[in-house]
Amino acid sequence: MSTSVPSNLSPSVRKIIDCYENENAGVKSNLVRMLNTGTLAGTGKLVILPVDQGFEHGPARSFAVNPEGYDPHYHYQLAIDSGCSAYAAPLGSLQAGADTFAGQIPTILKFNSSNSLDSGNKDGNQAVTTSIKDALQLGCSAVGFTIYPGSDNQFEMFEEVREMIAQAKDVGLPSVVWSYARGAGVTKEGETAMDVIAYAAHMACLLGAHIVKVKLPSDHIMQKEAAKVFKENDIDISTQAARVKEVVRSCFNGRRVVVFSGGGTKGTDAVFDDARAIRDGGGNGSIIGRNSFQRPRGEALEMLDQIMDIYKV
Amino acid sequence: MSTSVPSNLSPSVRKIIDCYENENAGVKSNLVRMLNTGTLAGTGKLVILPVDQGFEHGPARSFAVNPEGYDPHYHYQLAIDSGCSAYAAPLGSLQAGADTFAGQIPTILKFNSSNSLDSGNKDGNQAVTTSIKDALQLGCSAVGFTIYPGSDNQFEMFEEVREMIAQAKDVGLPSVVWSYARGAGVTKEGETAMDVIAYAAHMACLLGAHIVKVKLPSDHIMQKEAAKVFKENDIDISTQAARVKEVVRSCFNGRRVVVFSGGGTKGTDAVFDDARAIRDGGGNGSIIGRNSFQRPRGEALEMLDQIMDIYKV
Amino acid sequence: MSTSVPSNLSPSVRKIIDCYENENAGVKSNLVRMLNTGTLAGTGKLVILPVDQGFEHGPARSFAVNPEGYDPHYHYQLAIDSGCSAYAAPLGSLQAGADTFAGQIPTILKFNSSNSLDSGNKDGNQAVTTSIKDALQLGCSAVGFTIYPGSDNQFEMFEEVREMIAQAKDVGLPSVVWSYARGAGVTKEGETAMDVIAYAAHMACLLGAHIVKVKLPSDHIMQKEAAKVFKENDIDISTQAARVKEVVRSCFNGRRVVVFSGGGTKGTDAVFDDARAIRDGGGNGSIIGRNSFQRPRGEALEMLDQIMDIYKV
Amino acid sequence: MSTSVPSNLSPSVRKIIDCYENENAGVKSNLVRMLNTGTLAGTGKLVILPVDQGFEHGPARSFAVNPEGYDPHYHYQLAIDSGCSAYAAPLGSLQAGADTFAGQIPTILKFNSSNSLDSGNKDGNQAVTTSIKDALQLGCSAVGFTIYPGSDNQFEMFEEVREMIAQAKDVGLPSVVWSYARGAGVTKEGETAMDVIAYAAHMACLLGAHIVKVKLPSDHIMQKEAAKVFKENDIDISTQAARVKEVVRSCFNGRRVVVFSGGGTKGTDAVFDDARAIRDGGGNGSIIGRNSFQRPRGEALEMLDQIMDIYKV
Amino acid sequence: MSTSVPSNLSPSVRKIIDCYENENAGVKSNLVRMLNTGTLAGTGKLVILPVDQGFEHGPARSFAVNPEGYDPHYHYQLAIDSGCSAYAAPLGSLQAGADTFAGQIPTILKFNSSNSLDSGNKDGNQAVTTSIKDALQLGCSAVGFTIYPGSDNQFEMFEEVREMIAQAKDVGLPSVVWSYARGAGVTKEGETAMDVIAYAAHMACLLGAHIVKVKLPSDHIMQKEAAKVFKENDIDISTQAARVKEVVRSCFNGRRVVVFSGGGTKGTDAVFDDARAIRDGGGNGSIIGRNSFQRPRGEALEMLDQIMDIYKV
Repeated sequence: MSTSVPSNLSPSVRKIIDCYENENAGVKSNLVRMLNTGTLAGTGKLVILPVDQGFEHGPARSFAVNPEGYDPHYHYQLAIDSGCSAYAAPLGSLQAGADTFAGQIPTILKFNSSNSLDSGNKDGNQAVTTSIKDALQLGCSAVGFTIYPGSDNQFEMFEEVREMIAQAKDVGLPSVVWSYARGAGVTKEGETAMDVIAYAAHMACLLGAHIVKVKLPSDHIMQKEAAKVFKENDIDISTQAARVKEVVRSCFNGRRVVVFSGGGTKGTDAVFDDARAIRDGGGNGSIIGRNSFQRPRGEALEMLDQIMDIYKV
Repeated sequence: MSTSVPSNLSPSVRKIIDCYENENAGVKSNLVRMLNTGTLAGTGKLVILPVDQGFEHGPARSFAVNPEGYDPHYHYQLAIDSGCSAYAAPLGSLQAGADTFAGQIPTILKFNSSNSLDSGNKDGNQAVTTSIKDALQLGCSAVGFTIYPGSDNQFEMFEEVREMIAQAKDVGLPSVVWSYARGAGVTKEGETAMDVIAYAAHMACLLGAHIVKVKLPSDHIMQKEAAKVFKENDIDISTQAARVKEVVRSCFNGRRVVVFSGGGTKGTDAVFDDARAIRDGGGNGSIIGRNSFQRPRGEALEMLDQIMDIYKV
Repeated sequence: MSTSVPSNLSPSVRKIIDCYENENAGVKSNLVRMLNTGTLAGTGKLVILPVDQGFEHGPARSFAVNPEGYDPHYHYQLAIDSGCSAYAAPLGSLQAGADTFAGQIPTILKFNSSNSLDSGNKDGNQAVTTSIKDALQLGCSAVGFTIYPGSDNQFEMFEEVREMIAQAKDVGLPSVVWSYARGAGVTKEGETAMDVIAYAAHMACLLGAHIVKVKLPSDHIMQKEAAKVFKENDIDISTQAARVKEVVRSCFNGRRVVVFSGGGTKGTDAVFDDARAIRDGGGNGSIIGRNSFQRPRGEALEMLDQIMDIYKV
Repeated sequence: MSTSVPSNLSPSVRKIIDCYENENAGVKSNLVRMLNTGTLAGTGKLVILPVDQGFEHGPARSFAVNPEGYDPHYHYQLAIDSGCSAYAAPLGSLQAGADTFAGQIPTILKFNSSNSLDSGNKDGNQAVTTSIKDALQLGCSAVGFTIYPGSDNQFEMFEEVREMIAQAKDVGLPSVVWSYARGAGVTKEGETAMDVIAYAAHMACLLGAHIVKVKLPSDHIMQKEAAKVFKENDIDISTQAARVKEVVRSCFNGRRVVVFSGGGTKGTDAVFDDARAIRDGGGNGSIIGRNSFQRPRGEALEMLDQIMDIYKV
Repeated sequence: MSTSVPSNLSPSVRKIIDCYENENAGVKSNLVRMLNTGTLAGTGKLVILPVDQGFEHGPARSFAVNPEGYDPHYHYQLAIDSGCSAYAAPLGSLQAGADTFAGQIPTILKFNSSNSLDSGNKDGNQAVTTSIKDALQLGCSAVGFTIYPGSDNQFEMFEEVREMIAQAKDVGLPSVVWSYARGAGVTKEGETAMDVIAYAAHMACLLGAHIVKVKLPSDHIMQKEAAKVFKENDIDISTQAARVKEVVRSCFNGRRVVVFSGGGTKGTDAVFDDARAIRDGGGNGSIIGRNSFQRPRGEALEMLDQIMDIYKV
């Protein structure tokens, strides 16, 4: 075999990598790096620690409950100690620990952010707050973008993200796309509707995302035309696992890695239920932020350990 | 003969190619590649399989009825097995099979897309989701763009498309323009009106399109001034074939290839009637998406076979 | 004489060229090319055939009355056979005959166009649909732009045109500016008002236009302050010739070539009256489109011949 | 002394040049060029002839009263014969005489212009109609920009002008900034208010202008907070000279050259009063357009001669 | 030790510099330059003199009370004589003294400014009025930007600032970010609310700021969700020092330098109280403009001396 990807990959990882048939060895290598890191190394599953809540909700609402989180070093260490596959954060947070933790965990540079001081007068929008050059200088393994399908700014966002995905790929970096439908074209309930989540995931794939992140879908269907199709074709959306399956199918029939976000802080039982549903529906894992760093470190480590146990089965 | 275009072209293809008198050999070669591929090779007719409905309507509304379509490989194979001239799709879809199907069918990279989550608050618009570089790296034979004449964003779209046509031409790639009138300047009925379709096709030609794609026109005429002209000059628009003829005439008197879209899923008889009208009116063929991939594979192959039979006559 | 402009120019042409004292030899050579072509060669007068109505009004409204006009080759041939000074058209039209008619008549590439499907919601606007590179590759002798003084988009248009005039000049191409006041700052009657037409022509000169094209002015004066000035200074605007004279004076006192458009289709007598007024007022000629190609070829040739006779006197 | 500025400058000019301590020799040389030209050479005072009224108000309103002004050569000659320090005009006007008058008077290329056909719907705005390259090719000694502090477009204008000042400086050209407060943030009376004029002049200096041009201030104060400050600190604004003094002080305490515009056509006595107030308040001179070229040449020469006499004292 | 930063730094400075673990030696050197200048050299504290009020409020409202301030040289000299760590001002002000005071005090080039003539129709916004190249040519030690979190223009501002921070870093210049929440998403009282100030400071850090400048927070909390969090977690905000502490914690737990602005002119006792609170809360110092230059020079020097005494303790 003459491929530049390591030849001794596990079958699960090999299978995933083979789906990225159009990518260069740099992109594949970085995907492998994340898939072969931490507790879930080699399983084809991922658990990623994202910490961008400071940008989205402000420092106190993010970190006051577990004040160690005010320090960017805390999250690097938590991601390493819990056996996560990667740690994702905005520019400043990664810069603050880039040297101390260099090479100790794959990092994902989060490119754009909104914030809760925004009036929303111009519909959901964000600022790009870093660059591919920053990602390279910080030694990142991937770059991450959020898009808001359905926002009146969606087309500009798509073009922006498309351009950054292309630039990242040119330097061997895969892209993670947070696809969160919201804005003028989407009802509040629609933001997590089955059809909307699947649609948002599908568009991320069409834009060239390597890893897609969406919320877990509810059993609501927003578009009338979609409701008709779900009914006529007897698509099962009665369980969380079934709904995950429909999302996975919408990601090029499973040819793209899809992970699900943990949502707001909740009890560990609910977190574990989510993980089981993701696993049973064929999803590739979790991106779990607030549920990790808003717990005391000990509890967080224990919880993450159990989640990984679920995925390892 | 000293031209760099293959000298043993069929007369039909030769005649078409000669109309592109200003183009470089790269553009002509790629036009020939599509005109000499599949069942209709050498006839001067084209049947193209386009799959961008996932972007426009979402995955379930596009693929649930024939779930094999969730997999991008399915469409590549369908286009090849049915003897199509080319396969057109957005970035992600082509990437997902670019290596597996490399060199087996001419591909057209679809550059821009709208989606049905859009509120429409800013009138009809789209995002550019790929680049000429992507087209080259994917080994495409052409690039495709949609414009919305009549939208309040039409001038920006025209400029964007014009720029991409020029860039594509610079690297030897011809351009296919989907010219779909819609938006603030066009009534609902006007979107398929005789005068509007012909106008939309004509503007695509003026923008430098090599292949124009429009919907089949109805016998409605939207502009009062146009209605007067059609009447005074006794232009026959009583049959579909006559209306196709007027569109062909509006494409530089037949100097540009024009193909017609299949519209929503319908019965095969209606599909065949359309094909006969296109043929009789002097059109160059069909771009037929939902009517192909929303049928079971066997039925789709049979239907496409019969359509090609119609064009071969 | 060490100038690079041909030394055996007629006095009329020499006088015109000397007014472009700041231009490079490329720009001057192309101006000479147009002034020394066709029936009016050497007279300092120009008759130009423009065919951009397909973009502005659609194909049927432009060509149905004389269907040969659907074919771009028809207009090239008409311009050549009628002894016109140049042929002006958008990108696609020129491309369709660029090879067949190469070097047989000076061509002017029309850079921007509006269209009648536009809702006007954003006030009068246009799309740039080609580039200087296209003009060079098509072997054009000049480039042409339309501006809409008084539109809410006028400043963007001026900047766009200014940039293109500079780029064209850099490669030795002169610029023709169609200066048509319209939009939020101009009344309907004001679009052809004496003061507005002269103002529009003057601004085109200030922007660096080499040839200015305006409509023939009426004796209406739109701006109150201008009406006062016309009255106080006894400016004669009672005849068409007198009004042309005021326009010529507004073009740097005759230092810039100014030609007048023919307007909608009308009787030949009216066309001839216009030409006589342009000649008597000191204008440099006509740009005459619909009145040429919307007549049968024989009639058009005869009419253009008589117009040129008027200018030759 | 090792400076590259001519060493035999008059003390007045030397003092002015020394205030531009951060500028390169090119910028200083061109400032010297204007300060050492014409009747006021060496006095540290400037009288500049600006002719951009054709753009702002149209040709008839600008030139009909003295029709020689329709010819761009007239103004070059007037500026030379009257002993002006420099002649300022838009692109087209300078181009029309650039060769005939090359090297005979310092010229200032006016970069941006508004026009009176504008609806004002988008608040006060302008178009940039030329470039640094044009200024170099035309042999200009400076470039000129207008800004509208208080307009809803002011921030874009400031950024545009800032960029052009930097580009001009890079090639050794000083910048003249016409700072005219107007638009949504400024009342009509406020446009010439004492506080607003001083503020507009100060901001031009902060933007890096080398020469500031403002209107003569009235004794009105627009901002309540400013009125309080003027009163509390007993700032004398009772005479035109006192108000000029406050403007000069606002230009970095006299470290930047500030000249005042002549305003609309008026009697010579008023013009002379203005000049005396500018002189007595410490201003550097006048930019005097309509009061020059809207008078018959003989009268204009006489008037300009007397103005210069006032400044020479 | 092989670092390029001087090896004999005081422990306080060393500790600060070590927090910038991702920065190049150029950025660190310039941070050291400011931390090792003036009365507070080596203490890890900073007092900076900023003079951008002329841009924000106009010259009279800024300087009339102490008219020496009209002259840009005054502020350079005041900053030097008072023992400040650095002097911050817009382009024109720095240019006016760049040569005279070269190398005598670290300067911070202020990049963007608003002004009080703005109508606010488009919500809080600013113009960028200089460039990195200017900063280098002026020999600056840092660049400064203002952002308005909560403004409807915040995302464009963030992107602009992010780009400039990256460019500055590329040439070894650290960035100071003035983070002032205002605009449609922020109430008047919210502009200085505890949660909003901490949030604004945190976002500046996330954007890559090296030094953050905010106003002193009040004990108001604007966001309901934040109020809940402050209460539930018993965060002390009862004293100014406690509130400073929360801001410091929000700046990556003290890993970024944060200084506080002095606000409008007030009595020296209030100024000293502020300084003590900043010191006791762990802040790094003050940026104190109007309270410095709007006092007579003698008083200002005395006041600044006492402030520095407070910080030295």
